[in-house]
Amino acid sequence: MAPKVLICGIITWADEDVKQLLGDIADVVYFDSADRADFLKGFQPGGKYEGTVAIFRDNGLTGKIGIFDEELVNGFPSTVKWIAHNGAGYDQINVHACKAKGITVSNTPGAVDDATATTALYLLISTLRNYSISERSLRELKWKPNGLADRSHDLTGRTLAILGLGGIGMRFATLAHAFPMRIIYHSRHKVTTAPEWCEYFENVEEMMAQADVLSVHAPLKAETVGLVGEKWIRALKKGAIIINTARGKVIDEEAMIRALEDGHLASVGLDVFPNEPAVNLKLLEFPYITLLPHMGTETQDTQHKMEVRALKNIQDFLTSGSGKDVVPEMK
Amino acid sequence: MAPKVLICGIITWADEDVKQLLGDIADVVYFDSADRADFLKGFQPGGKYEGTVAIFRDNGLTGKIGIFDEELVNGFPSTVKWIAHNGAGYDQINVHACKAKGITVSNTPGAVDDATATTALYLLISTLRNYSISERSLRELKWKPNGLADRSHDLTGRTLAILGLGGIGMRFATLAHAFPMRIIYHSRHKVTTAPEWCEYFENVEEMMAQADVLSVHAPLKAETVGLVGEKWIRALKKGAIIINTARGKVIDEEAMIRALEDGHLASVGLDVFPNEPAVNLKLLEFPYITLLPHMGTETQDTQHKMEVRALKNIQDFLTSGSGKDVVPEMK
Repeated sequence: MAPKVLICGIITWADEDVKQLLGDIADVVYFDSADRADFLKGFQPGGKYEGTVAIFRDNGLTGKIGIFDEELVNGFPSTVKWIAHNGAGYDQINVHACKAKGITVSNTPGAVDDATATTALYLLISTLRNYSISERSLRELKWKPNGLADRSHDLTGRTLAILGLGGIGMRFATLAHAFPMRIIYHSRHKVTTAPEWCEYFENVEEMMAQADVLSVHAPLKAETVGLVGEKWIRALKKGAIIINTARGKVIDEEAMIRALEDGHLASVGLDVFPNEPAVNLKLLEFPYITLLPHMGTETQDTQHKMEVRALKNIQDFLTSGSGKDVVPEMK
Repeated sequence: MAPKVLICGIITWADEDVKQLLGDIADVVYFDSADRADFLKGFQPGGKYEGTVAIFRDNGLTGKIGIFDEELVNGFPSTVKWIAHNGAGYDQINVHACKAKGITVSNTPGAVDDATATTALYLLISTLRNYSISERSLRELKWKPNGLADRSHDLTGRTLAILGLGGIGMRFATLAHAFPMRIIYHSRHKVTTAPEWCEYFENVEEMMAQADVLSVHAPLKAETVGLVGEKWIRALKKGAIIINTARGKVIDEEAMIRALEDGHLASVGLDVFPNEPAVNLKLLEFPYITLLPHMGTETQDTQHKMEVRALKNIQDFLTSGSGKDVVPEMK
């Protein structure tokens, strides 16, 4: 009997790929549960998910069954060996609980790099050039606000600080370097594969002092909640800009708002928020900032790439016993 | 007596530079007229502008004295030999009338390339990714609209057609090629200095048929009014996007609106309009398009560069008898 694979997420672009990648080697079943209790019951003997070996999941069904927290993970039977997350950020999965149960978690890191870095580039241009307020002004039939050039800057020649030079950070660095911007970065370790024009700063505050714009690319984990807090924000030059396409909780939102209020920060460009889809209403009061509703990977090209990558991780596991893109906590 | 230079425009960033570039070699006078008649009277014997040799001008005073049309130009005395326009597009100057009177016209071509191409890049990302409607949705507290990924695309791998590979077009091509996008272009002649990855199309319609996005970089002249009309727009693939950072009148706006209405065009990204600051209200009805109020060069860095360049053209003329950046119609 073919191993059972549960598609517990939203396949939009890769329907054909499910058949092609898994059709011959797996018994594919689709999520069909009203709530968390019903979902977990499905894994019990006689349930529709009984015997599931691998789970494809994304954040699309969180509204129905909640995140993959310790309780949910502990409710899976021992048959479950692999969770292939369809996304780069896997903060909605308790990977430690998975590891303790012998479940491997994979994500889709490279697939999101291009689209997310492009979003960061958009936020970079929009904030340095004040295009969000400009478009609102035009749409209110007021043409352009006076004096915007006073607070607007070219990208070329300015300094972009990348916090976390992973796949997305490196891709963004490459796009910004095309202007060129000066690229400086901090990661837990110096990235040996980074090109020479990426200047490493071991000391975060020394990097902040040089930056015109800080772009956040750190994953959300227990130890990165509020990582960009009062101290680092104040280490930035007055008039600096922060861009965030990672996760809202990586920045201390209240500290960021205080810095916008007192003018220490000139602007922010945010694609992510601490309590999505809720947005802190105070943010809407700052006239110059740019706010996007988590659009980082919202393209059919990238969503297709991500889905195929997550499905491929399951295919690899089923055919070879191990898959790619295993998240670092598993190692 | 030092030759008289009239600053007939708005010096915002280069006050110090006026002194430094012209202080020792010219008698600098500043525009101070209530209207066109008063302005022209100033050039008469005994008037405040009498004996003016060179004029610095931008579009900022057009509201007071109108454009530099034939009437205005013919009202200048024969002392006037140089008009240094502070901008790339000099469609508000009748250069033929200037030539007939022996007045040389210069502009500031290179200075605007970076900022304008960056605006084009912003419009490219915003339209391919549908970020204008996304931000409006967030600001209406509706988070993200459903189904946006259906009509959103990555830049990488798509084909960008550049109509007019001058300084701005080439700069934009370079930024888009960083993804990379495939770059195709049409200019009146093949650009011999263009890199190999810029593919020349002699036939515009053949180029259009290959393009996912068309970006317009042709100057506005009598012969380019409505240049991008019904025929060329329909030569684009269904679902294509048009970006315009040149001048509104280079596109036949009604033909463009028809193509948006019937879905031939998926979107447009416009920084310029035929009758600025008026905007055709029909445009506001298309949910996905991006509209900016002519922000192409609205940065303090670029405006400073432009002002210095225009002043330098006057300095060169005064010290050597000829200046740089003479517009092609003079030759």
